[in-house]
Amino acid sequence: MPAITPPLVTLTTDFGERSPYVAVMKGVLLSINPAARVIDLSHHIRPQDIRHTDYFLATAVPYFPPGTIHVCVVDPGVGSDRRALLAGAGGQWLVAPDNGVLTSTLQKLGVSAVRQLTCRKFWRAQISDTFHGRDVFAPVAGHLSTGIDPADVGPPVIDWVELPTRSAVRYGDTWRGEVRFVDDFGNLITNIPAEKVDRLPPRVGLGGGEPRHVRWVRTYSEAGPGEVVALFSSDGYFEIAVVNGDAARTLAATVGTEVVLDLG
Amino acid sequence: MPAITPPLVTLTTDFGERSPYVAVMKGVLLSINPAARVIDLSHHIRPQDIRHTDYFLATAVPYFPPGTIHVCVVDPGVGSDRRALLAGAGGQWLVAPDNGVLTSTLQKLGVSAVRQLTCRKFWRAQISDTFHGRDVFAPVAGHLSTGIDPADVGPPVIDWVELPTRSAVRYGDTWRGEVRFVDDFGNLITNIPAEKVDRLPPRVGLGGGEPRHVRWVRTYSEAGPGEVVALFSSDGYFEIAVVNGDAARTLAATVGTEVVLDLG
Amino acid sequence: MPAITPPLVTLTTDFGERSPYVAVMKGVLLSINPAARVIDLSHHIRPQDIRHTDYFLATAVPYFPPGTIHVCVVDPGVGSDRRALLAGAGGQWLVAPDNGVLTSTLQKLGVSAVRQLTCRKFWRAQISDTFHGRDVFAPVAGHLSTGIDPADVGPPVIDWVELPTRSAVRYGDTWRGEVRFVDDFGNLITNIPAEKVDRLPPRVGLGGGEPRHVRWVRTYSEAGPGEVVALFSSDGYFEIAVVNGDAARTLAATVGTEVVLDLG
Repeated sequence: MPAITPPLVTLTTDFGERSPYVAVMKGVLLSINPAARVIDLSHHIRPQDIRHTDYFLATAVPYFPPGTIHVCVVDPGVGSDRRALLAGAGGQWLVAPDNGVLTSTLQKLGVSAVRQLTCRKFWRAQISDTFHGRDVFAPVAGHLSTGIDPADVGPPVIDWVELPTRSAVRYGDTWRGEVRFVDDFGNLITNIPAEKVDRLPPRVGLGGGEPRHVRWVRTYSEAGPGEVVALFSSDGYFEIAVVNGDAARTLAATVGTEVVLDLG
Repeated sequence: MPAITPPLVTLTTDFGERSPYVAVMKGVLLSINPAARVIDLSHHIRPQDIRHTDYFLATAVPYFPPGTIHVCVVDPGVGSDRRALLAGAGGQWLVAPDNGVLTSTLQKLGVSAVRQLTCRKFWRAQISDTFHGRDVFAPVAGHLSTGIDPADVGPPVIDWVELPTRSAVRYGDTWRGEVRFVDDFGNLITNIPAEKVDRLPPRVGLGGGEPRHVRWVRTYSEAGPGEVVALFSSDGYFEIAVVNGDAARTLAATVGTEVVLDLG
Repeated sequence: MPAITPPLVTLTTDFGERSPYVAVMKGVLLSINPAARVIDLSHHIRPQDIRHTDYFLATAVPYFPPGTIHVCVVDPGVGSDRRALLAGAGGQWLVAPDNGVLTSTLQKLGVSAVRQLTCRKFWRAQISDTFHGRDVFAPVAGHLSTGIDPADVGPPVIDWVELPTRSAVRYGDTWRGEVRFVDDFGNLITNIPAEKVDRLPPRVGLGGGEPRHVRWVRTYSEAGPGEVVALFSSDGYFEIAVVNGDAARTLAATVGTEVVLDLG
């Protein structure tokens, strides 16, 4: 694997910081490889929200350098027979439960290899039913960071779990997509790619409602408080916001809500 | 002291992140030893909650490698005559106020030495009445990380403050213990060790109430929403949870609530 | 620039941790300089609150060692024509929007140089309208940390934006100042320097109200719950608190509220 020295290991979880779970994972990782550099991505993923995790990782991971090891523990199926994975993509490594959290990252970066974690010599000796972050994921990442052959963690997998993500599609003068992410401010980020929306301003319909005109802006500051605006997100997707407000609440939309752009 | 290169210094506080206190401590530490690696354990300990801190540290610290230096600033008595301590335990070091926060960690790891911080040459020149994290604890940790002799920080202490923790005890077919920690989800983690609860299912009584049957599960996902379940926590203690709910609220229990397991 | 090896780069933002923005910035930074050490100061600045940011940085930055690079992204004017800056002060470097967030830090540390970020070779190839943290600030900090000449980022600036901060002033037996910061507990930290308040106890007036006697304490623990107390903050300023309460709410005060100390 491409080497970063000292190795970089990132952590993404839904554990919060009041409980000791994140701290425990850091201890396990650093006990296996005291030279590792641990980078917090987030410990405030919405609890057990796999779509949120998928969006988060697919947005952040591509910016990291080759050789980075990402550990993701959003794991509602812990203790069941869901598999644990190591995936290689774009020169980086992801260690995560096989529950769909890697869907968009692997699609975006291209998969080089996915393996099931089965080789117990890279795990802790005792495996609990409720905390594989400590017992499986952090230890495997720790060993990876010491330079073991990724092929040693377990056999290849070709049927990893993928979320049924919908791509936005165009019918004539209409784009149909969905809300992909609601950020902390209630802004609605959709799956409609900016570079394909070539005519402005469209009318916008949400959740099957009648399309209505919205104001297009380049930045939030161009409109007044309370105004519904459309813009392109920093990731290059169509976004709907309420200036100084909460679009998700105002417009009763959430992840998965249908979005229709009427360009006619 | 066992050396990790570069040295690892962890931080555990109740300061939150809106105020600059944590950032200040990092600056002080890195000014004394720019090579130190600073690892956040948590800055969201419940404000001034010594029992929470004690549980948090005792759960997380044992996973870290020998030579790690842990700084803990949950310090309601700052400015009073409470002492400041350096404790060695299990090859690791803890720098903390003498208010009980180290109780369970020292019991678990075994104490090698406890010293009172008195040597002012390892402190900042000016000592405030309200922020010893900046003026005493971070500086001492910084100097420790540069390799000073721990014996130089001050004289040995043998009467450090210990929380009156109760151990769970067994009377015939009954285990009596208490709730030790309530996590972010309201799950009740007790002090009754899993390996000693050999017969299932027990009846469970809380806070002096009549013991009642609860369902035993291996993981939360085995039961339905709202169901009261018993399981073993990832740390190996008896735990009571309400699936997708909040056991602390539903069962009116909190840290210290009596827990009785009736194995009969 | 004074070198720290490996280089230290701190991050201060109002992004929170649910959205991937902070993680993205870390990825960008580490892709440019995989050896950089990233230190989180806070990602919980009050959204778009420039005065909060100014106070936060001015309190924390002076404690860091020479050579530290601080990246601050609290940037309500992103996408407008506000400039982006690199400032050198006290041997440290600050990368931030030109919106006043550096006011007190530069006054406190003394400015050695301020430059406008204009040299696009240190930016990402595509510049969005809404996320200069990713496209401008993190990349420039990454390049700085590799040892480029700071003079190469752009031309000198002499008219950077400064907040109209008021200094506390004394008229005879009266000090007049204002609330500078309200911390998480509702404590009111003012801009009246402790070393200049030589007589105790004063009467204290807030927001134009009649001055009244308050109890002076050295630490919160000297008074009873609910009591209004005056003390010196750990930074050396006059502070008003309600023990175990919220002074900002109880006394209807906020940042900017006038504070009068009547020493007569």
